[in-house]
Amino acid sequence: MPVYKAPLRDMKFLLNEVFDYPGHYTRLQSGENATPDIVDAILNECGRFCEEVLSPLYQSGDEEGCNLENGEVTTPKGYPEAYQQYAMGGWQGLSAPEEYGGQGLPASMGLLKQEMMGTANWPFSMYPGLSMGAMNTIFLHGSEEQKQAYLTPLTEGRWGGTMCLTEPQCGTDLGQIRTRAQPQKDGSYKLSGTKIFISSGDHDLTENIVHIVLARLPDAPKGTRGISLFIVPKFLPDGDGDVGERNGVTCASLEKKMGIKASATCVLNFDDATGFLIGPENEGLNCMFTFMNTARIGTAIQGVGPAELSYQWALAYAKERRSMRALSGKKEPDQPADALIHHADVRRMLLTQKAIAEGGRAMLYYAARLADHMVEGHTTGDDKKAEAYDDKLGFLTPILKGFLTELGNEAANLGVQVFGGHGYIREHGMEQIVRDTRIATLYEGTTGIQALDLLGRKVLLMTRGGAVREFTLRVANFARKTLTDKRVRPFAVELLKLTAQWNLLTVRLMLAARKDRDMVSSAANDFLMYSGYVTMAYMWARMAAVASDKLDKGGADSEEFYRAKLATAEFYYERLLPRAQAHATSMLSPSKNLMQLGAEDMSFIG
Amino acid sequence: MPVYKAPLRDMKFLLNEVFDYPGHYTRLQSGENATPDIVDAILNECGRFCEEVLSPLYQSGDEEGCNLENGEVTTPKGYPEAYQQYAMGGWQGLSAPEEYGGQGLPASMGLLKQEMMGTANWPFSMYPGLSMGAMNTIFLHGSEEQKQAYLTPLTEGRWGGTMCLTEPQCGTDLGQIRTRAQPQKDGSYKLSGTKIFISSGDHDLTENIVHIVLARLPDAPKGTRGISLFIVPKFLPDGDGDVGERNGVTCASLEKKMGIKASATCVLNFDDATGFLIGPENEGLNCMFTFMNTARIGTAIQGVGPAELSYQWALAYAKERRSMRALSGKKEPDQPADALIHHADVRRMLLTQKAIAEGGRAMLYYAARLADHMVEGHTTGDDKKAEAYDDKLGFLTPILKGFLTELGNEAANLGVQVFGGHGYIREHGMEQIVRDTRIATLYEGTTGIQALDLLGRKVLLMTRGGAVREFTLRVANFARKTLTDKRVRPFAVELLKLTAQWNLLTVRLMLAARKDRDMVSSAANDFLMYSGYVTMAYMWARMAAVASDKLDKGGADSEEFYRAKLATAEFYYERLLPRAQAHATSMLSPSKNLMQLGAEDMSFIG
Repeated sequence: MPVYKAPLRDMKFLLNEVFDYPGHYTRLQSGENATPDIVDAILNECGRFCEEVLSPLYQSGDEEGCNLENGEVTTPKGYPEAYQQYAMGGWQGLSAPEEYGGQGLPASMGLLKQEMMGTANWPFSMYPGLSMGAMNTIFLHGSEEQKQAYLTPLTEGRWGGTMCLTEPQCGTDLGQIRTRAQPQKDGSYKLSGTKIFISSGDHDLTENIVHIVLARLPDAPKGTRGISLFIVPKFLPDGDGDVGERNGVTCASLEKKMGIKASATCVLNFDDATGFLIGPENEGLNCMFTFMNTARIGTAIQGVGPAELSYQWALAYAKERRSMRALSGKKEPDQPADALIHHADVRRMLLTQKAIAEGGRAMLYYAARLADHMVEGHTTGDDKKAEAYDDKLGFLTPILKGFLTELGNEAANLGVQVFGGHGYIREHGMEQIVRDTRIATLYEGTTGIQALDLLGRKVLLMTRGGAVREFTLRVANFARKTLTDKRVRPFAVELLKLTAQWNLLTVRLMLAARKDRDMVSSAANDFLMYSGYVTMAYMWARMAAVASDKLDKGGADSEEFYRAKLATAEFYYERLLPRAQAHATSMLSPSKNLMQLGAEDMSFIG
Repeated sequence: MPVYKAPLRDMKFLLNEVFDYPGHYTRLQSGENATPDIVDAILNECGRFCEEVLSPLYQSGDEEGCNLENGEVTTPKGYPEAYQQYAMGGWQGLSAPEEYGGQGLPASMGLLKQEMMGTANWPFSMYPGLSMGAMNTIFLHGSEEQKQAYLTPLTEGRWGGTMCLTEPQCGTDLGQIRTRAQPQKDGSYKLSGTKIFISSGDHDLTENIVHIVLARLPDAPKGTRGISLFIVPKFLPDGDGDVGERNGVTCASLEKKMGIKASATCVLNFDDATGFLIGPENEGLNCMFTFMNTARIGTAIQGVGPAELSYQWALAYAKERRSMRALSGKKEPDQPADALIHHADVRRMLLTQKAIAEGGRAMLYYAARLADHMVEGHTTGDDKKAEAYDDKLGFLTPILKGFLTELGNEAANLGVQVFGGHGYIREHGMEQIVRDTRIATLYEGTTGIQALDLLGRKVLLMTRGGAVREFTLRVANFARKTLTDKRVRPFAVELLKLTAQWNLLTVRLMLAARKDRDMVSSAANDFLMYSGYVTMAYMWARMAAVASDKLDKGGADSEEFYRAKLATAEFYYERLLPRAQAHATSMLSPSKNLMQLGAEDMSFIG
């Protein structure tokens, strides 16, 4: 089984050549220390850590999984040591505020780290990822005292964190939450209830775990407006920054899952556990979701990472495994057969993976610039700026999370397919990528929820199509500018058609939704996928434009790299982008074809 | 976890109302005993066996898997007993010739049995399925003595069978086979070599296992023309029809797989194992592939079965689980939330599963009629008839195998998606269906191989487009006849367009392939998927036409059933069929977008 190699050339192409991150960082306060040298050093060092420490634990972690014994969870062999290296390296605080022990670098640096860690070993990366969720929440909504007590050890990586939302009766529909919080005389609360699907709910990587918990106060209003947010530490802090008394939260069981087996998914019982209110009473959902966009982009990485990893391994196999002769004639006449890579259909699968991995990465880095501004708004107390960029990001988030995780699953499955029957065998690791990736379209809001968020909320309700108009204007402006570049012109022409179509589709759906209340929900999935294909087309055109420019200027150190970008763009436009039209047709079809069949008539068994 | 329910209403709708199996059986010699009563009784009894015996073992078999100890493989708890019931019930010989202990019923009856067994418990169904492969091969190519010695105990289910093709260095490319067969003085052979991925290679269900093995004679020509076929029994027959001496074939290890864990996938070592030549020397591949079409249709069932099973369970969950309110207003005001089934996007997923399961089933039953005629040609020694029907079937086989297994994977994944996060948890069984189904696009010829077989061989090389012309003529004739039916007319109009387009695409590819030798391989996958969507559209139109007719005539006992068929057809045409156009666009794009990138330029890592 090969190991992961950080695709630094591609990452730096996007950062330095396509999206001008060096310039972007000079415009950020947090960018002061993110000079090109520093960024380069961090990427190289993080890549090395992921290649040498995390990647080798990917498969063994899946084989061994997590264990629950005597109420304590242990992670697979090598995980605690790897985590120690991670924490000692200061990686958890990379983009955390300096006043709580972080390095104060831009949020996007954290995303680059997450991407490499998540590609090398997604299940491992979930532990620090969940901690980040807790850190963000406490940073924004915690009191200064809470920040001192919890944020600092979290930033140092000494403590871990979780987000406790889901209960047996509800996941998406958090208004149904039942966990109770009883106020105590000392200002604290006693929490009781059961939470399920809690990633990193218990483990042996850190000396303490800080649970961020949604619960109801007595007499709280029903539904989503009666939910408050609490900090519930596994061990109560002793006041000196160390851990004290064990709190009443226990891991009742570990879920047996399809994949991400090295990530501990816990059923947590809260039994009069001591908790501390964070943020205002009954506004827990708002507080929890302040960083929803960044959390969802964090999950969108799980579309890109597996595509990259599966591509790396499938490509290596396709170069080495020989089967049959290429239809256009023998390519390796001295061998008993030609390598798989000479077969057009194998290339179709590999290029699909490549286009998804690189196009998806571009989408992430494009969005991360906006995230930097949003986070800077928050850290500097500039709420207006934070909100403005959160809105921009809010349009892209469901597209990234929904579309990229769906395509990540496709890419992972293609990796298995390139291996043929061997892809189904565990030792090659390809099927593990499929199993691990399958969760991505389910958690942090299913694809269906992302689709509704995009079409129903962001596009129609909040902006009456304005979000699409604004984004497509940007795309069309870019396209018009590149019409004169012979290599990019076909992409630009297509993009101009698509931006017009995207607006037209939006208007037609808006009109249809006035007469038909089921239209939005009926069209949402197709609209999400359509939006994803067009957004990725924009990214491929941007990359192609840079590549073409470099080739024009000549003297590039890696002409082949740029030619490969142009070839992949061509593949994307000619072989994958046509799918957008199927979604366009389907989304405009009447909601009747989904709604007319009575629930009792959907099956006639028995 | 719910159990499987045999969808007898839908099966009988297809058999009796759409495809006139009663009439079809009267035109078959083997159909003499397949009277409507008998068929009905068999379906009911088989359904009961699958529901009560096989379905409850589905999940436990996955948990436990197979075990190899002291060179012997044991299947999961309950498997040997279930197999005993199966064998005692005479199920293995259902469609086998009466002279060797079978019931002599039409081949299609065997397919119906396989469908129900494979849906209830695919891994279990593989044991009898592999035996069937061995039976077919021996029946057609074995000597009378071999038939007496092997076919009879196989038909009785006392012995099991395997097909030993794959070796470590080759799966698809069987010309690379290295296993050697050394002639012995007594007319037998000694076989030596290693075979991998041998399903049912060893187990504790039967008293003997009959391996059908591809191997090379000394001085055989290189490549595919130097391969011969051998019978290698685990135990040599003692001459009285019982098992004698242990032969030199041993299970070296069991593969650890993504799924189908209850099916023993073995590495088999042949160490001077005694074998008996079957069929002519060096014509082993031809002999092995005589029944390739039926074997591939057998695997196509794995597209339909999981779609059905996943649909049954997802539908039950969607009716029971409540989350959020329907966008068109509260549906269950007295409940804290509406059931999932009231959400349009959940319905989209369920209807996709339904359309795939029912449309795929129709494709199977449509093809099974042709298979009946082909098999009858073989059994009656009418080679011309056999060949004629094998050709007809040969066009449909790659479409069924390639397209239906791809869509089966999609359906299984949608089942997980309907369950949300719970779909990822093992106890619900939904993720097992995904894991089990993933193999279907890999074995019996990958999707890529099916695509090449369809476009390269069946359509272009063998018939110069004639196969498409012939099939679309049939479709268009049907469509024209139904134009007058108001309910079916929209489907008929669409079908007429598609039949014209299918021919046009074929011609354009044929012309392009003359100038560009990579064109066929580049376009094959899209052509396969396009063909699949159009063929399934034909099936949905056929079903809709019958349903409409029944509604017109009135007095139907189940009007809702027919209305549901029409509604599902509408869903298929409006929401799934548009995908065919994306494939049409993609298949005509230049092969350059796949071939231009040098292998060494596909990645710039490091």
